[in-house]
Amino acid sequence: MFFASDNSSGVPAQVLAALSAANEGFALGYGADRQMDEVREKIRALFEAPEAAVYLVATGTTANSLAIASYVQPWQAIYCHRHAHIEEDECNAPIFYAGGATLRLLDGEHAKISAETLTQALADAPEGVHHAQPGILSITNITERGARYSVAEVTELCRIAHARGIPVHMDGARFTNALVAEGCTPAEITWKAGVDVLSFGGTKNGLMGVEAVIFFDPAKAEEFEFRRKRGGHLFSKHRYLSAQMQAYLTDDLWLTLAKNANARAEALEAALTDAGVTLVHPRGGNILFAEFPLKAHEALRAAGAVYYDWPAPPPAGAGPDHPHQCRLVCSWSTTEDDVTRLTEILKTAL
Amino acid sequence: MFFASDNSSGVPAQVLAALSAANEGFALGYGADRQMDEVREKIRALFEAPEAAVYLVATGTTANSLAIASYVQPWQAIYCHRHAHIEEDECNAPIFYAGGATLRLLDGEHAKISAETLTQALADAPEGVHHAQPGILSITNITERGARYSVAEVTELCRIAHARGIPVHMDGARFTNALVAEGCTPAEITWKAGVDVLSFGGTKNGLMGVEAVIFFDPAKAEEFEFRRKRGGHLFSKHRYLSAQMQAYLTDDLWLTLAKNANARAEALEAALTDAGVTLVHPRGGNILFAEFPLKAHEALRAAGAVYYDWPAPPPAGAGPDHPHQCRLVCSWSTTEDDVTRLTEILKTAL
Amino acid sequence: MFFASDNSSGVPAQVLAALSAANEGFALGYGADRQMDEVREKIRALFEAPEAAVYLVATGTTANSLAIASYVQPWQAIYCHRHAHIEEDECNAPIFYAGGATLRLLDGEHAKISAETLTQALADAPEGVHHAQPGILSITNITERGARYSVAEVTELCRIAHARGIPVHMDGARFTNALVAEGCTPAEITWKAGVDVLSFGGTKNGLMGVEAVIFFDPAKAEEFEFRRKRGGHLFSKHRYLSAQMQAYLTDDLWLTLAKNANARAEALEAALTDAGVTLVHPRGGNILFAEFPLKAHEALRAAGAVYYDWPAPPPAGAGPDHPHQCRLVCSWSTTEDDVTRLTEILKTAL
Amino acid sequence: MFFASDNSSGVPAQVLAALSAANEGFALGYGADRQMDEVREKIRALFEAPEAAVYLVATGTTANSLAIASYVQPWQAIYCHRHAHIEEDECNAPIFYAGGATLRLLDGEHAKISAETLTQALADAPEGVHHAQPGILSITNITERGARYSVAEVTELCRIAHARGIPVHMDGARFTNALVAEGCTPAEITWKAGVDVLSFGGTKNGLMGVEAVIFFDPAKAEEFEFRRKRGGHLFSKHRYLSAQMQAYLTDDLWLTLAKNANARAEALEAALTDAGVTLVHPRGGNILFAEFPLKAHEALRAAGAVYYDWPAPPPAGAGPDHPHQCRLVCSWSTTEDDVTRLTEILKTAL
Repeated sequence: MFFASDNSSGVPAQVLAALSAANEGFALGYGADRQMDEVREKIRALFEAPEAAVYLVATGTTANSLAIASYVQPWQAIYCHRHAHIEEDECNAPIFYAGGATLRLLDGEHAKISAETLTQALADAPEGVHHAQPGILSITNITERGARYSVAEVTELCRIAHARGIPVHMDGARFTNALVAEGCTPAEITWKAGVDVLSFGGTKNGLMGVEAVIFFDPAKAEEFEFRRKRGGHLFSKHRYLSAQMQAYLTDDLWLTLAKNANARAEALEAALTDAGVTLVHPRGGNILFAEFPLKAHEALRAAGAVYYDWPAPPPAGAGPDHPHQCRLVCSWSTTEDDVTRLTEILKTAL
Repeated sequence: MFFASDNSSGVPAQVLAALSAANEGFALGYGADRQMDEVREKIRALFEAPEAAVYLVATGTTANSLAIASYVQPWQAIYCHRHAHIEEDECNAPIFYAGGATLRLLDGEHAKISAETLTQALADAPEGVHHAQPGILSITNITERGARYSVAEVTELCRIAHARGIPVHMDGARFTNALVAEGCTPAEITWKAGVDVLSFGGTKNGLMGVEAVIFFDPAKAEEFEFRRKRGGHLFSKHRYLSAQMQAYLTDDLWLTLAKNANARAEALEAALTDAGVTLVHPRGGNILFAEFPLKAHEALRAAGAVYYDWPAPPPAGAGPDHPHQCRLVCSWSTTEDDVTRLTEILKTAL
Repeated sequence: MFFASDNSSGVPAQVLAALSAANEGFALGYGADRQMDEVREKIRALFEAPEAAVYLVATGTTANSLAIASYVQPWQAIYCHRHAHIEEDECNAPIFYAGGATLRLLDGEHAKISAETLTQALADAPEGVHHAQPGILSITNITERGARYSVAEVTELCRIAHARGIPVHMDGARFTNALVAEGCTPAEITWKAGVDVLSFGGTKNGLMGVEAVIFFDPAKAEEFEFRRKRGGHLFSKHRYLSAQMQAYLTDDLWLTLAKNANARAEALEAALTDAGVTLVHPRGGNILFAEFPLKAHEALRAAGAVYYDWPAPPPAGAGPDHPHQCRLVCSWSTTEDDVTRLTEILKTAL
Repeated sequence: MFFASDNSSGVPAQVLAALSAANEGFALGYGADRQMDEVREKIRALFEAPEAAVYLVATGTTANSLAIASYVQPWQAIYCHRHAHIEEDECNAPIFYAGGATLRLLDGEHAKISAETLTQALADAPEGVHHAQPGILSITNITERGARYSVAEVTELCRIAHARGIPVHMDGARFTNALVAEGCTPAEITWKAGVDVLSFGGTKNGLMGVEAVIFFDPAKAEEFEFRRKRGGHLFSKHRYLSAQMQAYLTDDLWLTLAKNANARAEALEAALTDAGVTLVHPRGGNILFAEFPLKAHEALRAAGAVYYDWPAPPPAGAGPDHPHQCRLVCSWSTTEDDVTRLTEILKTAL
């Protein structure tokens, strides 16, 4: 009953097999491996983007920071949601990589930015050298509260950003969860909607530590390559990153893994709803935020369930009926049995 | 006959096995995995440094940059050899991480800094706010030209640096090659000699991409942790780094791998010397720089040998007898047969 | 009728005279001038802080940025009001100087931070390497909305900050306006209240471009000196900065200038209130925010009055009776006649 | 007998008068003053560059750092002489402003870079993401050793740099001294020779603290404006910078001042040569490096002469006949009498 985070899960057998296969012989380093050539072509094909520049890095913070830094000047601002990962969980990394750019934090339900909010924020940005100018919009799909931007919503936000002359980054740490839930093509929810650069996550969905950065317009490719090396993020034995991503994209493994995570979350959602539990945010993929009495949390923890209090631990002195919120994440490796057990214990304790 | 670089080799079976073993179940992320606890204790024991702070990162550039940045202020200078990896091969990463510190490049045979050179350089550094002040000394063992600092030499350099009030970093991308060649203990050539922080390489000696940073004085530990996260270098699924390092340090695997690389280089050195080839630098571990006629290079390349022209390609129009220099690196996976074949082809062509 | 900004005014005759006097002969540069010795001693005496480290720079953005950077680490956060000058008007300079630290923006009436808000914000700051940690509190007195922190309020904010282990910076671009309005000593509203470092403004109150940075604890002095030089803010002909500050502090000129500005603002406040005009924020010194019908603004502008629409220009299509807000700043050189004329035109137009 | 530095001199009466004149009334800030409009037009006319973007800052370090940062990427290198001011006397400021770019230090007599040296250095720069790429060439005229680049030499260096695709910055802290000595037009030794951006010094030649940055191609203008503000270098009461530069450029004052400094240096050079003193570098303008016995230095110092030992103080235990080197700088305010007295004392002591 591990629902703490999808990055606490392991990797499927195909990934281990790919590492073994890639281990044969000597290989040129730093991205010149033949596996990377294949990864690049696969991603271009899957995204219907034959010109895209494609790179691999090992962490999501890196993918986001380098992608954003490639577009933003140090005297500009990165527009994002107040609860974006780049604001809340990356310890100033995007600022570091962008040479001192600032973040503009936007409000919005379910960690989503609405078209109205973005329009207003950009309208409110004063011109002139005294003020950090709009530099980029970064949106997260699915969001840190588990909600999903639809293709139409992404399209509208990109339209607004582009009208102001700023590009759009999508933090897709859980991109595949959004994709399979939305039921669209990768292109439809990215470049066809206006996204300029995507952090295409692999780690949370079954890799050891691989994320792709996809520039749909390759104009920033050369700059990215220098930024990646300068950040210490270019791997000498790059083949081990490539091999993981290669396995991920073979035989629809990436989609299968995300579908499993989403299906478990859907089942959990149904069970919780059935039990009368309040869900705080609409489920966009594999994450749920739920509220139930503290006594139920205690029963679950006693039974070995692992998940986070979210956004905060219960207040001191809260009674057994205090409605307390938590985050429940399903991963590719969450089983039906995990869901069933958690649900049953919960129902008993309610 | 692959002698281009030790980071073009794969990993031994033990490392793949460790990854598989670590793949079981869910694990806490970001360095809180149980494998990391074991790695920390192993390294402390091997280095006789029970208080040392130990961290893992995935690339050598990262290890060096974060280690150095933990000590240097942005208005200071990093003293290193003109041919140090941090100067020649890291695309300004140490400057980036150190917030804009500069490098002071010292000369010296075989990419080694002599005590006299360091003493003079520090004496020449003017005081006052107009000038970047000495901030740290960084030495590489074995050096980028394959030479080795002895324990006595490391001790003397550290003494000079400490007398000026600056700490010492050792870039140990090939630390184990130096260690087994020197025949000393890890402690003797590091903290007992005065080294404050070590980049303890794993990648070039048989891992996929893991380096340890070892602070012998843990005072900088907390700062390092923030710097690592801010740089995007903290892995969520950290267990896969830990597992590799764990395997590396088990049953003396790290020493065995380095001994093999050094033994192959020693055999190659003997054969080259026997063939009358000029060796440009003294062999400190697993790297040789040799000079032989261009026609011999051509014969070797025709036979499939892979290595770098170093430091530069042959001049245009150089004749078949032009003495041309190259770098030959042996790795843990270089075979006796590789050495024998290269030597034989070379002898025939001389 | 110039009420746009106090930094649009000139300088009093004493400042010009001081520049002429300082122009004699040769002088050592970079702060080693004898005028600076006198300035340092005067400021130490006026602030009852014999150990204080005192420096001069030429702009307020510089004073704030360097003062803050001396305390904040790049992975930390600067807590300030949403309308602080360091957030709204310095184009990311504090982030630049602090090596990539972020800002945490707090709400509060009249651009003041309340004790409750600060307490909550610090309580909400999550620990751990994923999140920018609290680094410093910066408060502005008088604020960007013209309000004033009392000695008691400053004391309480400092107490809260220090309890969390973070220091306090005061942006005193209009410090003297606050001081004479509060009727306390310089020490009482700064270090005795807990302020660690003060940007002590001169430019807005009658100098050409001189601000002092005063560290009440000199521990950061050496670091500041390097940061100032590295930022290009150390003047070779430093005597011309010193001479201005010397004149400023002689014969209570600084106090006289601020008192004049405040007195004009007080008279204007009385006249506006008398005319039934709404004042938006409480007057803390020399700045008023007032709201009157658009037709009155138009009459004033037609008569040559200069001031800013604040925080924004009138909406398109606003009618003549639309209540529109503006900022009116009195400076040391604002005359009684300026105030009288503006008031009379306004009354006629209401 | 003050020969320590031209930045130890005061300012001529015209500059003080200009400040008084500019002090009248209220003025828009931040460079929107009418004096700046005039300065911009004057500089464009004097340099025959009607499209040039012209800005004022207060220190030479700032002018150099901002000019260079406008062209260089953080992963690139600034090519300059080993004894350039940007390397030796700016405490990493150019690195700070350029976001972490590095410096490549070139050798050359008299602190001049030769065409051969530059050609070789650029040829030696390896391509690829591992290595900081050539970003800009910065040359100093007159150099830190007092020598001058001729128009032909500047032209040749610019040709070489442009052939590699990098722009050229000229550090003209003593530009006017070079200009009047070379006897050319401002355009001939700058943009007509290929210079892309000039730090046009005023401070060392008679201003309190004003330097212009002149972009002959205005493409970088907008970026510069943001960089200047972000560095804290945009003055609110900008008119006081403009007024100084306005006076400087009126009635050829700038040329008159530099001619006086150069003429004094020429007279000193003749007298020293006549006395048999060795001059270490060729005189390019207003600076001499001379070598005479330590006993002569002692006699001069005893008589009140002020100048620097350069590049280093005399060695411990040096005897009275030890030939010791010093730097002698003439400024706009150096008198014939100063020169005569120094020469006479020296001759007596030789």
